[in-house]
Amino acid sequence: MPVGTQATVKGMTPDQLRSLSVEILLCNSYHLMLRPGHAAVGRLGGLHHFMGWDRPILTDSGGYQVFSLSALREIGDDGVEFRCHLDGSTHFLSPEGAIDIQRALGSDIMMALDDCLGFPAEHSAALASMKRSMSWAGRCHAHFQKVADDRQALFGIVQGGVYTDLRRESAERLVNLGFPGYAIGGLAVGEPNAAMYEVIEKVEPFLPDDRPRYLMGVGTPTDLIECVALGVDMFDCVMPTRHARNGSLFTRDGRIVIKHAQYKEDPGPIDSTCGCPVCQTYSRAYLRHLFMANEILSSVLNTIHNLYFYLDTMRRIRQFIEFHTYDELLTEFRRRSSSAMEE
Amino acid sequence: MPVGTQATVKGMTPDQLRSLSVEILLCNSYHLMLRPGHAAVGRLGGLHHFMGWDRPILTDSGGYQVFSLSALREIGDDGVEFRCHLDGSTHFLSPEGAIDIQRALGSDIMMALDDCLGFPAEHSAALASMKRSMSWAGRCHAHFQKVADDRQALFGIVQGGVYTDLRRESAERLVNLGFPGYAIGGLAVGEPNAAMYEVIEKVEPFLPDDRPRYLMGVGTPTDLIECVALGVDMFDCVMPTRHARNGSLFTRDGRIVIKHAQYKEDPGPIDSTCGCPVCQTYSRAYLRHLFMANEILSSVLNTIHNLYFYLDTMRRIRQFIEFHTYDELLTEFRRRSSSAMEE
Repeated sequence: MPVGTQATVKGMTPDQLRSLSVEILLCNSYHLMLRPGHAAVGRLGGLHHFMGWDRPILTDSGGYQVFSLSALREIGDDGVEFRCHLDGSTHFLSPEGAIDIQRALGSDIMMALDDCLGFPAEHSAALASMKRSMSWAGRCHAHFQKVADDRQALFGIVQGGVYTDLRRESAERLVNLGFPGYAIGGLAVGEPNAAMYEVIEKVEPFLPDDRPRYLMGVGTPTDLIECVALGVDMFDCVMPTRHARNGSLFTRDGRIVIKHAQYKEDPGPIDSTCGCPVCQTYSRAYLRHLFMANEILSSVLNTIHNLYFYLDTMRRIRQFIEFHTYDELLTEFRRRSSSAMEE
Repeated sequence: MPVGTQATVKGMTPDQLRSLSVEILLCNSYHLMLRPGHAAVGRLGGLHHFMGWDRPILTDSGGYQVFSLSALREIGDDGVEFRCHLDGSTHFLSPEGAIDIQRALGSDIMMALDDCLGFPAEHSAALASMKRSMSWAGRCHAHFQKVADDRQALFGIVQGGVYTDLRRESAERLVNLGFPGYAIGGLAVGEPNAAMYEVIEKVEPFLPDDRPRYLMGVGTPTDLIECVALGVDMFDCVMPTRHARNGSLFTRDGRIVIKHAQYKEDPGPIDSTCGCPVCQTYSRAYLRHLFMANEILSSVLNTIHNLYFYLDTMRRIRQFIEFHTYDELLTEFRRRSSSAMEE
């Protein structure tokens, strides 16, 4: 899922996203509740109509950004009081409130509010955080049953840090509640990659086979391929779009930094094996020029390329699964020198 | 002509420009000679290939930006020495050099180098400047005959400030040289609108009927309509694109400033009479949100709308001319309160 934080994937028109075969976007409830306000979006016909996007949208609960962006005031059993990062105004986000906000936005998939643990965290802190997240998941689930219609789905989020016992308990409690999809949260927050893969491997057996598993906020192209192998179905990450704006472009042999002088008169495409519209038309020299000249089109074209690269990676994953050759894809990725992708 | 200063119309892909029926772009030789360099553009296949634009391009000579952007060092009969506004490096632009630069860029229409007079200017200063411009026009013309092929055209530029006698002399000297098109330069530099219109009215009879007349750097929608009535065929202006990025949007009733609070929950389009793709899809509320959130898509969508407005104005002009009802269009525009357009 490309990330459209503020009701727009930065630099992309919906037409451009559709032409890239984007099937679903993620938008951030935290940003939208503060600006322009979820109630305003609701009055304007909901998020799809507001941003001109007619395909599915997943919204997060707002919790993650409350913990990472705002000046956190106070967290309690009922929710979290915080100061807005834009104007310092005070807000309160409860499990029920997170559902109401996402109801007003009208997303197709909404997420339960969770308590977002940092890394590293002691077992006792991870336990307390997981218990709070599971309590909130229950309240979200109950409130959702009361207010929602069948046009929206609510996913639960497994927490528990890097502790297998806590992850297992979290998964079991969510499955007991019963959700149409399950997210794995609290990863890619600073822990080593191996620790992340291990958590996924250990928690996956406790999630139903017939429900989508969504790994939140991940990751590099290699992460996608490794984590699909571990049983994950869905991802979101700002990496392709944010790197694009910083001039860092994905290729099958790692990322290139387009501002480097070596591309000044390079007539070739970003990646000669890439089928994206940018690689069909523009040289590295032109893309470097746009970046050096601080042109808007630099962000636009780089974003088209990087999103295509990510979506194409997922297409390849699906094809290799279909043809029962996924091991070959894994081997190829592990063989390539992909150090530049891992930053 | 939309302005694509640095080999891109800010925020627009070539596809978006084509879907707006843009027929020709202007690019600035001054910017391109300094970054990425005209020779580099030439080695990369010329400006069309470099920027992925397969329709005509007009380049200016670079003179106007030398006078307005750079730290001017010294002007002499042979040309002008100046310091680059980017890195302070010293460059020399001669009439022959301006042709060579535009040859390397490979534009379809190139412009003669002229001496750019400020406003106000005494008659004696305007006379000296015009004489220099005409001398340079002659040298450009001669050099062009030597080096050019039939894939490029060179236009001359009438100068002479607000002085009718100088404008007439300039026009006659250019016509004696013989160009496939004639520009009127040195206007819209601070003089009152009435003075600009008067200069055009006075100089027009001395330009051939069967050659395009191009008014450089103009202007508002009303300017377009008034100046076509005075005999002008071509225009370029940053106004639609620059205003777009500043959130100032053209409508048939003047410009609106999209950040104003009154649009916060306005579900209507920018202009209910507009046929552009932005007005078909997005509300003023969404466009205000994008602007307030400093999103790239704000510049993109606003630019699409403003360019459509300008191009549609030119389409209407052509239709009214074709149906011999141009006076009605003039009357309509003069009747409407267009004060907001005139800033």
